This record gives sequence, structure tokens and C-alpha cells, in this order.
Amino acid sequence: MATVTPHDVQQAASLLQPFILRTPLLESLALNLMTKARIMVKAENLQTGGSFKVRGALHRVLKLSPTEKAKGVIAFSSGNFGQGLAAACGQLSDPPVQCTIVMPGDTPMAKQTRARSYGATVVLSNIVPGINREVTAAELAEELASTHKYTLLHPFEDPDVIAGQGSCGVEICQQCQEQCNLDTGPDMLLIPTGGGGLAAGCALAVHAVYGDAVSMYAVEPEGYDDHRLSFAQGSRVGLTGNPVSLCDSLQAVSPGKNTFPITRRLLAGALVVNDSEVRNAMKVAFETLQLVLEPGGAVGLAAVLSGKCGDVEGKTIVVIASGGNTDYEKFSTIMGGGSTCRSSSSSGGVESKL
Amino acid sequence: MATVTPHDVQQAASLLQPFILRTPLLESLALNLMTKARIMVKAENLQTGGSFKVRGALHRVLKLSPTEKAKGVIAFSSGNFGQGLAAACGQLSDPPVQCTIVMPGDTPMAKQTRARSYGATVVLSNIVPGINREVTAAELAEELASTHKYTLLHPFEDPDVIAGQGSCGVEICQQCQEQCNLDTGPDMLLIPTGGGGLAAGCALAVHAVYGDAVSMYAVEPEGYDDHRLSFAQGSRVGLTGNPVSLCDSLQAVSPGKNTFPITRRLLAGALVVNDSEVRNAMKVAFETLQLVLEPGGAVGLAAVLSGKCGDVEGKTIVVIASGGNTDYEKFSTIMGGGSTCRSSSSSGGVESKL
Repeated sequence: MATVTPHDVQQAASLLQPFILRTPLLESLALNLMTKARIMVKAENLQTGGSFKVRGALHRVLKLSPTEKAKGVIAFSSGNFGQGLAAACGQLSDPPVQCTIVMPGDTPMAKQTRARSYGATVVLSNIVPGINREVTAAELAEELASTHKYTLLHPFEDPDVIAGQGSCGVEICQQCQEQCNLDTGPDMLLIPTGGGGLAAGCALAVHAVYGDAVSMYAVEPEGYDDHRLSFAQGSRVGLTGNPVSLCDSLQAVSPGKNTFPITRRLLAGALVVNDSEVRNAMKVAFETLQLVLEPGGAVGLAAVLSGKCGDVEGKTIVVIASGGNTDYEKFSTIMGGGSTCRSSSSSGGVESKL
Repeated sequence: MATVTPHDVQQAASLLQPFILRTPLLESLALNLMTKARIMVKAENLQTGGSFKVRGALHRVLKLSPTEKAKGVIAFSSGNFGQGLAAACGQLSDPPVQCTIVMPGDTPMAKQTRARSYGATVVLSNIVPGINREVTAAELAEELASTHKYTLLHPFEDPDVIAGQGSCGVEICQQCQEQCNLDTGPDMLLIPTGGGGLAAGCALAVHAVYGDAVSMYAVEPEGYDDHRLSFAQGSRVGLTGNPVSLCDSLQAVSPGKNTFPITRRLLAGALVVNDSEVRNAMKVAFETLQLVLEPGGAVGLAAVLSGKCGDVEGKTIVVIASGGNTDYEKFSTIMGGGSTCRSSSSSGGVESKL
């Protein structure tokens, strides 16, 4: 098992600083009055590539050896990790690093197009010249990596990715001290959680500064509460089934093997929110913060607004708004009460959406 | 005629700094690739109160004499200036300053409720105890100011308000140098313009740092192009009529008498965008910047996307996104192609929406 230390996270933050946006820690008077709490929103939806994922992706790319850089990288993802990696390789690296993203065949054209616009090669897992059988995106990525000597990148297991995501937590600590004189830290930190890369990285960063003074929670969508179950059992639980959830970016079925030892040690627990609570949080973010959040990016705010954090009156709560990659039509469908389906079985497993 | 100097603007920025958000100067890879330019968006929609208006309002309030502070202030506005002033007086001033906002009777309940939640007293101009005749919001505000010795605040004519709005320009200059090493400044600055307070204040700030190197433009909605006409004529033109426009926050009918001498001297001109261009810009901001903009807040981006700035390839353009106060239903109606009407005749004139 690979370990990640607070020092690794701090180093990652320094390395990334010239390349990424230090996203704002935002407050809304209206939201504070509504909740009777002080809600500080770390707006990672404004990050390059539309989510925090570029942090870990770029950190991993910066740590590649010269030979690995020359050969290029590959990942399987229809979601934010793919967008973040494409942006990291094609736009933020100088010179650019060749990048292939394997997406399931049913990935919306807008996501394919945007990854291509960043400079990535997009391969659809059901349309593969020279391969005459059904393969998942994961299998295909492994085959292509092996054939072309690409470095295969994992969205949350890689220690360099975890350390990179933690740079978000480093910024939160800096911003709490700079903007708010919060020397003792906020009362609570809420982290949207799929595989646990963001949660593990940020927990390391925040615990290093504030110790146990900040109660940190993973927030998961209903049906994908693998962290909650794993914390209760004391070991990694794997979910089965294929429940419907709006939160396509948080559909991990098990905590990562490298993230879980960290999150188990440092988090106070996991909170679970349902689609209706997520939809409401997206609307509140729109109207009080003027931010567009994707469903997975809104689970932290949903936990506050739905009372899942208990009585928050008078408390200071940092909420990570982890991403905002949604087009208007999809947002509008969600606001209308429609639910999007889980990725089809051709997607090569849950990680393809991460 | 009252004058405002670059020094006044600099002083205002220092005075305001502890109280307001230094809004981020955001970039989007997708937007840059789409426009082949470097577009830097000053996200004033994220400002306290949902628009830049709190800057000027709070600056004016901070400059009140102790006696004036004790008596309280009043303004007539159904829009962003009212929200900003309510926030400044009720939430940012310590101790709070009593604040009355006169709104036309047809002001949406959400805006009334939010101003009240900040601590303001809201008076509707068609429901006035003890006044048995039709009065406009402007007339009523003057009457109440006279009766109660309130200080009546104007959304763009007051020199302290103009200087306060200019703090946005001071931040833009700082952020260009910090984030982008743009020692010579951007090529262009686009400023949404109603009465011209933001344009005048920001022009003073940016010209003081970069001189004539930055081409600065007021951007106005079709039907409210009073700056364009006034620049052409060399003196303040007053519009008549009541054209329909999505941009309810920019419906001034004449440049301010204190703003025009500044904007005429420092701006390169005025650009005009129509509702369809504004609607498109709101959608692009939603999908590439993850920002919610109100129509008036999107006119700068609309000018870039519609080609009104000419060929922008390779240029660096700072766009002020001046506000984001819209609820989801209204946004959704606009996206569906619906147009909102100009304020009713009971509104007391155009300034009520500013």
C-alpha cells in the first residue's frame, strides 16, 4: 500500500501553484442568513477543467520521468478526471504531453469535443479499429497502455494524484487564515467523495494545520455510500448493484485502497444525501452564490441544507464545491425533477465517470 | 460638477478592502479556445450582494458623518443598488446603519425579501400609509428623506459611489500583474454600463496604471445606448421611449453628469449588444465558466462573442461580469427565449432598476 504524507501534499501544492487557479473561498450573505451558519464555499467548479480533478492529474503529469512524458499518458474516464487530465496535458504542460482518454461509447459528444479541444486523443471503447470484441473502457486503456507504452493514470489510487488533490485543502487552510482570521480552523469541512482522493488529500492538509479541531466528513450520494459502510465496518466495503443517482461524478463502489487508510484515520464520518437534496442544493448555489454546480459538486451544500450535519447554527463550515461540469440542458432537466441514469454497462465500471 | 480622481479611487479601494470580496479574475480554457483570445472575467457576480454595487454603496456609507450615520440612509431601487446598499448597511457596517429602500410596487417578492433579510426597511411606492396619491419611487424616497432626515443616495452620480465602484478596477490591475504578469495591461477592458458609475470608476483606476495602452469600452444593451450616442455627439444624450430589453440592470436613459466627463475622456467608445447576444453569453458563461450571470452582467462577454470588439484573436481581454442576481426561474425563461419586460411606469424611472 502506497502512503501519502502531509509533506507530500504541501509539496504538491507548491509544485502546482504556478499552473492552477487558487479557487476562491466564497461566502453569501443570503446563504449565511438562510442557514444561521457561516458557510464558506471552496469553489472548485471554477477550477481549470471545471473541477478539482486537474490538481491530481497535473501533479501526476509533472512527476512523470522524461521518458514517460515522451511516451504519453492514458486514462479511462467519461467525466471530470478525463477533462482534468486532458487540460493538464494539453494546455498546462509545456511542452504538451500526449494524452489519450478512453471513454465509453455513450459519452455525450460535448465531453468528447471538449477533451479533444484541450488536445487529447479520445478513443471510444466500443469503436476500436482492430479489436473485434467487446471491451470495457478500463480493459481498452490497459491494452493501449501496454501496446504504446503509455503511462496509465488512475483517478484516485495514485499517491501523486491524492497529494495533488490535497492542494485544495492547503489552499483552504491558507484562505481561512487570510480571509477570516480563523486561526483555529472552521468547525466542519464537508468533502464530496467518490473514490476518496479529494477527501484523503484534503484531510491530510487540514489535519496537519488544525489537528482534530475540524470535524471532517465525506459526503456521498444515496446508493454510493461505500465510505459510510466502510467506516462502520472498519474495512473497505464494495457495493454491488447499479442504483440511479444524479451524482454521476461520485459513483465509486468502494473506497480506494490507498485513500481509505487516510480517510478512516482522519475523517469524523460520512454523510449521505439523496437526489432531491442535491437538486435543492444546486438551486440554492445558483441563486445565492451565483455558481453552477454539477450534482456531485453540490453534495456538501446539500448536507448542510438538509440538516445532515446536525444543528449548524453559529458554526463555521467549509464546503468544497468540487465541480461544475454540466451543460445548461442537463441542468435544466435536473431542475425540472428529471433524474439522469447511471452510466450504461458498457462504461467499463464506475471509475469511468470519475 | 463633482470630480473624482484616481487618488480617490485608490483610497476607496483601501478603505473597502477589509469588507468586500476581492472577486476572482477567472479564465476558462474552453472559452479561450472558443474565442482564440485570452478572456479574463472579473466575476463581480460573486461579490457580496450579487453585484459590484455594494462597492460604491458601502464606500458612501463609510464616508457618512456620525450624524448622518445615526439618521440612516435611503435609496430608490428595485435592483442591484438596493441589494448592495441593504447589504452594506445591514451586514457590513458595524454598527449597522438604518437603511430604507423604496421599490416600485411590482418588484418581485424575492428581491424585497432579500433586502429585508439584510436588515433594510422596504417601502413600496404604491403602498404608502398616509400618502393618498400616486408617487414614483424617486419622489417617495425624496419625501421620506426630507421627513426623516435620511441621507438620499444616488446609484451613480455620487462621487463616493463612483470612487467605490472604481475599486473593481484597482483589483483588476493588481490581479493582471499578480496572476498574469501583464505589466503592460490587457489589450481591452469591457465594462457593462448603465449610468456609468462602474465605467467611470474603473476607467480612472485602469488609466492611472496603464495609460492609453488599454482600450476601454462601455457595453450597453440595445435600446439603452445612451453612452454610444453621447460619445458620438460629444455631450450627454437623453433617451426617450421604453424599449424592451433583457438587461434590467442597465436601463439608464442618460450618462450621469458626473460620470460622463470621465468616461468621455478615458473610454475608447461604447459597444451595443442585443438580447439574443446577451442570452448566448449567459449560456456560454454557464457552460464554460460555471458562473450565473444576469443579463446586464453578461453584456461584456456578449460583445466578445458576437464580434462587436472586432477580431480578438491573440488578444487579452478583461471582461467585467458585473452581476448575477437572477433566480433560476427567470434564468430559465430567458434561456427559453422569453424576454422580460421593462419595468412598469410606476417604477419611478430607470434608476429604480440600477
